[in-house]
Amino acid sequence: MQQLQVQLGDRSYPILIGAGLLGEASLLSQHIRAHDLLLVTNTTVGPLYAARVHASLPRRRIVDVVLPDGEQHKTLANISSMLDVLVANRYSRDACVVALGGGVVGDMSGFAAACYQRGIDFVQLPTTLLAQVDSSVGGKTGVNHPGGKNLIGAFHQPRAVVADTETLASLPLREMRAGVAEIIKCAMICDEPFFTWLEESIEPLLELRQDVVAHAVRRSCEIKADIVRRDEREQGDRALLNLGHTFGHAIEAATHYKSWLHGEAVGAGLAMAATFSARAGFMPTADVERVAALLRRAGLTTSAADVRSVDALDAMRIDKKVKEGRMRFVLLRGIGQSFLTSDYPEDALQRTLAEHFA
Amino acid sequence: MQQLQVQLGDRSYPILIGAGLLGEASLLSQHIRAHDLLLVTNTTVGPLYAARVHASLPRRRIVDVVLPDGEQHKTLANISSMLDVLVANRYSRDACVVALGGGVVGDMSGFAAACYQRGIDFVQLPTTLLAQVDSSVGGKTGVNHPGGKNLIGAFHQPRAVVADTETLASLPLREMRAGVAEIIKCAMICDEPFFTWLEESIEPLLELRQDVVAHAVRRSCEIKADIVRRDEREQGDRALLNLGHTFGHAIEAATHYKSWLHGEAVGAGLAMAATFSARAGFMPTADVERVAALLRRAGLTTSAADVRSVDALDAMRIDKKVKEGRMRFVLLRGIGQSFLTSDYPEDALQRTLAEHFA
Repeated sequence: MQQLQVQLGDRSYPILIGAGLLGEASLLSQHIRAHDLLLVTNTTVGPLYAARVHASLPRRRIVDVVLPDGEQHKTLANISSMLDVLVANRYSRDACVVALGGGVVGDMSGFAAACYQRGIDFVQLPTTLLAQVDSSVGGKTGVNHPGGKNLIGAFHQPRAVVADTETLASLPLREMRAGVAEIIKCAMICDEPFFTWLEESIEPLLELRQDVVAHAVRRSCEIKADIVRRDEREQGDRALLNLGHTFGHAIEAATHYKSWLHGEAVGAGLAMAATFSARAGFMPTADVERVAALLRRAGLTTSAADVRSVDALDAMRIDKKVKEGRMRFVLLRGIGQSFLTSDYPEDALQRTLAEHFA
Repeated sequence: MQQLQVQLGDRSYPILIGAGLLGEASLLSQHIRAHDLLLVTNTTVGPLYAARVHASLPRRRIVDVVLPDGEQHKTLANISSMLDVLVANRYSRDACVVALGGGVVGDMSGFAAACYQRGIDFVQLPTTLLAQVDSSVGGKTGVNHPGGKNLIGAFHQPRAVVADTETLASLPLREMRAGVAEIIKCAMICDEPFFTWLEESIEPLLELRQDVVAHAVRRSCEIKADIVRRDEREQGDRALLNLGHTFGHAIEAATHYKSWLHGEAVGAGLAMAATFSARAGFMPTADVERVAALLRRAGLTTSAADVRSVDALDAMRIDKKVKEGRMRFVLLRGIGQSFLTSDYPEDALQRTLAEHFA
């Protein structure tokens, strides 16, 4: 088992990573202390793993909430229903919400926990690669609004994250690849040696060799946790985690969140951020090819042929990260050397759009 | 103008108190920096003061939300509507929610601000005495649930509180008296000299002599701010602010939040806490009479003749502050000397109930 600590003062918490952790009763009991639990999962993950969690937490009061699977159910109305269940069971401030599933389940569970009695504990048991390396770490919780993704939410840190890498065996390969995009992103932000390791390990990673998966998850969590520690509420450095995301969000928005998975869009966005960095003269062109090659080996697309560049640009302009007119991007001076800037040649952006969009 | 600072690290904020502050454009402009504002008020307060706020904040984009007046509208559904307005106007993270009204408007505005894009700024312009001395200070925000009051919410500190004491001229006397109960509570918690000052000043306070009002508001805010500074998230000392509230909540719950104002119930609760403290042998009986006399001069009731003691006890037992079976109370060793305890003779509680309830 791998273990690391997210350092956030009195909100610090451990991340535990390893094969079969959901079945380890003593471990789960140690990190989930409350007697009254709300176990939140969905119709896909629940049948696979909820019984295992119940078995590992005997002599607790566990109320199950099984959400329908899918991003379209990540709504305030469903948060309201979860709060109704907490109230109906007369759960006190000492209760704990346990999220068993991917990013949607985690984001919603965390937000319900943040709102109930002004904040109760929650624990993440992420079962997708994306959730294990990204969404379960950092305390961002919330739901979508018809006007935009994640517009409603709270910063609410979990008490613990227990990532059972065996659960990835039930994950569709397409979602596995999408999760790998966020791992590649972490390496590109600040860790060139990790990028090199990924170049050597991408196939065993996709084939779920457990030691390789555990290392990739651990290193990604470390990188994210370190950035979150420096900037919990996204006033500065945390924006680096949005590498590839301005382009990625534009792809998702322009295709109405239907044809691209988030991680797939981020993957293409990483290729675009690399191109942009080279065209702007910040990064050697050879690094662009290294990035594209690794993404392709991970089974990810580096362009969005189904999105027109004008539509992508429109979508970027209404993205919530735009500040005072000028778009800011996370760009690269090299692999592992990211920085935030709104100072770039407009021409470089246009060329990037022309190269990667229809 | 009186000014004090709530010390909460990077969440510190000023409280400004004085007559006519809503009309001081430079002051409001200085403390409300955002260009995009959501001005939340209600159907009673809006017609009286919203125009004044607009006039003091020229060249801003101000979108008004006018809530129906009353505690029954303090719902998650109305928060959802407020979020819809923020999204519909494409307000960014730099926007600010401005609460103009009493506790309900403040609690809802703060919670909407806490949830929008995981937290945007908000500023409180409290127009009731209760809001000026109590609910606008401390960062508790939220809404009611059919299963209980304030069960849904967040801790979210305002950026500033501007209390215009002239607005109290439009407050019904009954609400004025209810606000005075929270002022008396502050004195009883930790400031005997302030209690003595109130004994000398209660009539001019109720008659709205502006210097007397400003001092009472200021000192109450100081006391509350100091306690909140020591315990922002109610893990310990902050519970002292619940002096009189366990009994008060029981009165409100047993009468279904219909016949008693919150402050009125707190007033009776203070008398009960005093009786309980004396019967338990913690406080001299003479102090009980001092408390009751001041409450009566403030026009407040010291008993709940319309509530049966068994119903009050039931209501207390399901109050969210009950921990592991044994009820905890804030009691007194004397006026200005409060402490939290679950160690008291059961008989003293029973006698208190018998003396103050039907």
